[in-house]
Amino acid sequence: MSEEGIASQLLQESIGKNVLVKLKGRRSVRGKIKGFDKQMNIVITEATEIIEQQGNNNNNSEKKEQEQESQVGDVLIRGDNVITIAVL
Amino acid sequence: MSEEGIASQLLQESIGKNVLVKLKGRRSVRGKIKGFDKQMNIVITEATEIIEQQGNNNNNSEKKEQEQESQVGDVLIRGDNVITIAVL
Amino acid sequence: MSEEGIASQLLQESIGKNVLVKLKGRRSVRGKIKGFDKQMNIVITEATEIIEQQGNNNNNSEKKEQEQESQVGDVLIRGDNVITIAVL
Amino acid sequence: MSEEGIASQLLQESIGKNVLVKLKGRRSVRGKIKGFDKQMNIVITEATEIIEQQGNNNNNSEKKEQEQESQVGDVLIRGDNVITIAVL
Amino acid sequence: MSEEGIASQLLQESIGKNVLVKLKGRRSVRGKIKGFDKQMNIVITEATEIIEQQGNNNNNSEKKEQEQESQVGDVLIRGDNVITIAVL
Amino acid sequence: MSEEGIASQLLQESIGKNVLVKLKGRRSVRGKIKGFDKQMNIVITEATEIIEQQGNNNNNSEKKEQEQESQVGDVLIRGDNVITIAVL
Amino acid sequence: MSEEGIASQLLQESIGKNVLVKLKGRRSVRGKIKGFDKQMNIVITEATEIIEQQGNNNNNSEKKEQEQESQVGDVLIRGDNVITIAVL
Repeated sequence: MSEEGIASQLLQESIGKNVLVKLKGRRSVRGKIKGFDKQMNIVITEATEIIEQQGNNNNNSEKKEQEQESQVGDVLIRGDNVITIAVL
Repeated sequence: MSEEGIASQLLQESIGKNVLVKLKGRRSVRGKIKGFDKQMNIVITEATEIIEQQGNNNNNSEKKEQEQESQVGDVLIRGDNVITIAVL
Repeated sequence: MSEEGIASQLLQESIGKNVLVKLKGRRSVRGKIKGFDKQMNIVITEATEIIEQQGNNNNNSEKKEQEQESQVGDVLIRGDNVITIAVL
Repeated sequence: MSEEGIASQLLQESIGKNVLVKLKGRRSVRGKIKGFDKQMNIVITEATEIIEQQGNNNNNSEKKEQEQESQVGDVLIRGDNVITIAVL
Repeated sequence: MSEEGIASQLLQESIGKNVLVKLKGRRSVRGKIKGFDKQMNIVITEATEIIEQQGNNNNNSEKKEQEQESQVGDVLIRGDNVITIAVL
Repeated sequence: MSEEGIASQLLQESIGKNVLVKLKGRRSVRGKIKGFDKQMNIVITEATEIIEQQGNNNNNSEKKEQEQESQVGDVLIRGDNVITIAVL
Repeated sequence: MSEEGIASQLLQESIGKNVLVKLKGRRSVRGKIKGFDKQMNIVITEATEIIEQQGNNNNNSEKKEQEQESQVGDVLIRGDNVITIAVL
């Protein structure tokens, strides 16, 4: 179970499936995994980029989180930005 | 006691158990460990993602911490985001 | 699919094409890829640099995001700043 | 004195002793060291997690620091979060 | 095109030319490249250091960006601070 | 002069002397160096930990810096937090 | 020109000369270079530490930058904090 490939294994099984990749800096990319490499660089097709625009320092107690979505086609994610990858 | 595997050892013993993985950026993932690798990449099943939404800069002296939880199924955590892993 | 070259492959196919490179620190560079290397250092020609100027801590509920663009000719991007590369 | 093992030496001598491990991001873990490895990954038993909740940007000149403590049993700390380890 | 030297190639061609090196932390250095090495450490002669002083959290909707410039003669830039290098 | 050991040399000469180790995150540790290793991990005895509590975002033009000191006995500092080490 | 030693070369030529070393976190050290090593660890003698205290989030449009200087004798700077080194 502790073999080196748990990340690769999950990513390999997810090829062609929809995933949500959460990135540092309150960004996410949603789409289909086309490929990946050892550094966890990932190519997502039919990608949607999501930027959370949290009302951080305002005087709002409700603090609604707003998201800004944009279609970006094919996108390469540099692996060191990845926090989590969830299979949808 | 200082052998290289203390992290692997605790993670190996925790396979199938519930853990709480605290991540940088005020995120956590709670669920069952399915696997892990040397970089501390971890696959969690039946995962719940928790985002702390701390009222940082507001004029509230009470400063209630709010958490936002969401079910995410299977999730791969990139190891370099891990702060602590607690066995529940 | 998990061969080492997914990043290189996408970049190689994108030579001469327009891309949008998102960088850490709310910067982006848009232009044509002229070349790249293993560290994901990228040379962009006919480049436009975009700096997002988000009204972060103000009392504005609308929170319009403003962008500041400037033409920069040829620009070398150091790879470790890259978040995503989208083919336009 | 400059042999490679000063960190290992102090940690080895501290096995079974109470320590306070200060982490990046204003967190600490207090408890008994059960084990550690070369990356300074540490397993703490009977652990208490402490989160400092500093009133950073408020209009309080007193600026009382509040701490939030929680019992977490066994916890694995990823080494690259460690700032200091004090023997109690 | 994906040979290892794209960064070196652009820097080598830029020896003696004016460049603008953007650094992390809202700093830049403008001047002539005298030399560089594999870590992208760069020596700039006739250098001007530029610090952006952005009015971040104020109640100004105009948000004028102010720059503070200072002549610094010869300056060595440590490579890991570099974001982009533009040939002027 | 550019031999690899300038850091080790200064630290070796400082064994048993009082130093002030400035750390990232506005922390310092003052005390006697007992030992160190290649990663600049340092063990300080008779240590005092100092946390700067700067009034960052308040409406105070005076901006008095306050320090919070605590005696911590023996403390291990993880090297990658070190900014500067001054011999007292 | 692209030989590996541009950083070492400038530092070697600067031994005994006054330099201003700018560090991450709005700190600088001014003084004479006594020595350095491959990681860009630097020992400065007759050192003055400078901390910029920028009035970041206040309602001041003037935004005067204040500096706090202190004499620190001999100081070792850990290389990964260095942004720039200017020969004075």
